Amino acid sequence: MIDVEKVRADTPGVRSVAHFNNAGSALPPTAVTDAVIDYLKAEAIGGGYEIAASRADDLASVYDAASSILGGEPRNWAFVESATRAWNAAFSALRFSPGDRVITTRAEYPSNMAGLLRAKEIQGIKIEIAPNDKHGQVDVAALKAMLGDRTRVVSLTHVPTQGGLVNPAYEVGEMLRDSSILYQVDACQSVGQLEVNVDDMGCDILSFTGRKFVRGPRGTGMVWASDKALSQMANPAGVDMSGSEWIAPMEIIPHPKASRFEPYETFFAGKVGLAVALRYTKDIGIANIAARNSMLAERLRSKLSSLPRVSVHDLGVEKSAIVTFKVDGYEANQIKSRLAKKSINLSVSHTNSARLDFPERGLIELLRASVHYYNNEEEIEKLVEEISMLS
Amino acid sequence: MIDVEKVRADTPGVRSVAHFNNAGSALPPTAVTDAVIDYLKAEAIGGGYEIAASRADDLASVYDAASSILGGEPRNWAFVESATRAWNAAFSALRFSPGDRVITTRAEYPSNMAGLLRAKEIQGIKIEIAPNDKHGQVDVAALKAMLGDRTRVVSLTHVPTQGGLVNPAYEVGEMLRDSSILYQVDACQSVGQLEVNVDDMGCDILSFTGRKFVRGPRGTGMVWASDKALSQMANPAGVDMSGSEWIAPMEIIPHPKASRFEPYETFFAGKVGLAVALRYTKDIGIANIAARNSMLAERLRSKLSSLPRVSVHDLGVEKSAIVTFKVDGYEANQIKSRLAKKSINLSVSHTNSARLDFPERGLIELLRASVHYYNNEEEIEKLVEEISMLS
Repeated sequence: MIDVEKVRADTPGVRSVAHFNNAGSALPPTAVTDAVIDYLKAEAIGGGYEIAASRADDLASVYDAASSILGGEPRNWAFVESATRAWNAAFSALRFSPGDRVITTRAEYPSNMAGLLRAKEIQGIKIEIAPNDKHGQVDVAALKAMLGDRTRVVSLTHVPTQGGLVNPAYEVGEMLRDSSILYQVDACQSVGQLEVNVDDMGCDILSFTGRKFVRGPRGTGMVWASDKALSQMANPAGVDMSGSEWIAPMEIIPHPKASRFEPYETFFAGKVGLAVALRYTKDIGIANIAARNSMLAERLRSKLSSLPRVSVHDLGVEKSAIVTFKVDGYEANQIKSRLAKKSINLSVSHTNSARLDFPERGLIELLRASVHYYNNEEEIEKLVEEISMLS
Repeated sequence: MIDVEKVRADTPGVRSVAHFNNAGSALPPTAVTDAVIDYLKAEAIGGGYEIAASRADDLASVYDAASSILGGEPRNWAFVESATRAWNAAFSALRFSPGDRVITTRAEYPSNMAGLLRAKEIQGIKIEIAPNDKHGQVDVAALKAMLGDRTRVVSLTHVPTQGGLVNPAYEVGEMLRDSSILYQVDACQSVGQLEVNVDDMGCDILSFTGRKFVRGPRGTGMVWASDKALSQMANPAGVDMSGSEWIAPMEIIPHPKASRFEPYETFFAGKVGLAVALRYTKDIGIANIAARNSMLAERLRSKLSSLPRVSVHDLGVEKSAIVTFKVDGYEANQIKSRLAKKSINLSVSHTNSARLDFPERGLIELLRASVHYYNNEEEIEKLVEEISMLS
């Protein structure tokens, strides 16, 4: 069980806002903010490189922290500046021949789609979209039927940004286990709110961000690649002198480990902060977080659904901490602004983030209220009360 | 003239270290550290996205700041996480045909070489190395003679990381003006210490970092691209939903402006800090900084040169604030560690960062002491005194 009063006391932001934008960027615990600030102050006193050297163990602890929560070996984890940098670091290290196939889903994160479309332009890959099942999540049987000789990668977003859906990432992993196809999972919205374990999931590549459900600093992310994936990877886009070895005037080779994905220069203070955030998450316990978030999200869905003119739009069998809804007669941004004036934070998902998803569902935009374990019932009441005044 | 006591009072680090690693990562002024910390605290209280929205003007001021010091229009400047991200964002947006030629120089920054070698592997470009002249800087006449129909890009590092050399970036720009060849300048080590102006230089792409002579936060950088360059550029590596528009299920187009280079998620607190650092630099005045740094570096070169067993290795007609030297009989890292114990920070350049440069010069490693305007004569005396005990 989570001591809600304790975690709220650790979270100064809850005293000023009811924060339902955890799927955007969560409120960090004091320990995380302090870790980043302390590191920045140390740099200002001692010098950036000198502090990185003297605090090498703190910096390296981020790999152990990721490994201990999410599985895999520390050497297969890399720290980068965002989930999108993470996703691209891995994907751009693969080499495709024209006609190689990559399968993804209707709810793929738009920035991943941008990476896929760039690879289509430059390397001639064929992008195929697996259909959804009747619950609105990826249809695993249909996906299986699409696999073929030229299928190189299956790319799945575990929890899409635009809805409560949890894609069946473990089932897909089970289906792909022992195949030569690489399974790339975007866990940006799932790490920190749901059980994510790279070994159990059977994925080859997994990426996440610091700022969402992990409650880490903005400008941080991590990527994991299996040894199998690393063995098939060349130099990633943006590879630099610290991720490769310049062995001859006209030759570089990538590091054997995931460090090939890491830039020489980075947000070091954020790296230390992310390590603290991961350990904080581990201390609370993912099972506890998942249970509480599910309870809070279901309560919110249930209360919103009972209001006239409000419809909840979350798909899938299993649902996440993301609650999406609309209020007939109001533009989403109107409501977001109105709530902001009452110190209630939520966000809006637009078609431009969901071009393979919203049009098919007859949607243009949705309000998105994403809960996290430090939210409480009073905050949910406050949000529902404000929405009820509109409906 | 610079009020040295004032800038030292603004720089808390000078009370604990004699920092000669400004070419690594400089000591920031209090105003920069405070700006980053204040922003992080605001995020913790109000939410990451919400603060980015309410402080949009502060964030956007980084483009105006860059434009006002370095030329170009604000819309042609983009904020990214490092100089290498910046260099790669621009270079990776170009499309090459096999056999297209890129000319660079012996002192090209190794991470740029990594980017060039990756493009060689994937797109089949031919990388050519322009020779140095008798002063050790790029031979502009020889470079001119190498240009040909297939030459697409000239890539130049203005101030190399591994020595005091200042490459004749303005002369190269003059020579290339009105040609169809794109001129890409890495100004990572020159912005903040020397006059850099994209219009006067006649470059098409220019990148720099926040943490060095600009005295900004780690994990920040910027890139500028001319309209001419942008018109030839497609989607950069790592392009995401904020740098492109997803106009059809299988089509994205990049933003017309430099914002195509920017990731949706970034180190926002660092962006605000970089804006403060650029304005601080402007207030001090680049001409003042260049004059003082030149005086300090020449003093250091002269004193080191007079010591037995010490040799100074800076090439070029014009020299930067970077002073490189070795002490016969000592490994560079031995000396670096010894000085660190006396609270003197400097760094070491190795062959792995200078494979086209050091071997030709018979070098394996050099000590690097890089001055900045907040350093004073006493600190130089202290450094020279320590080195004299070895020689």
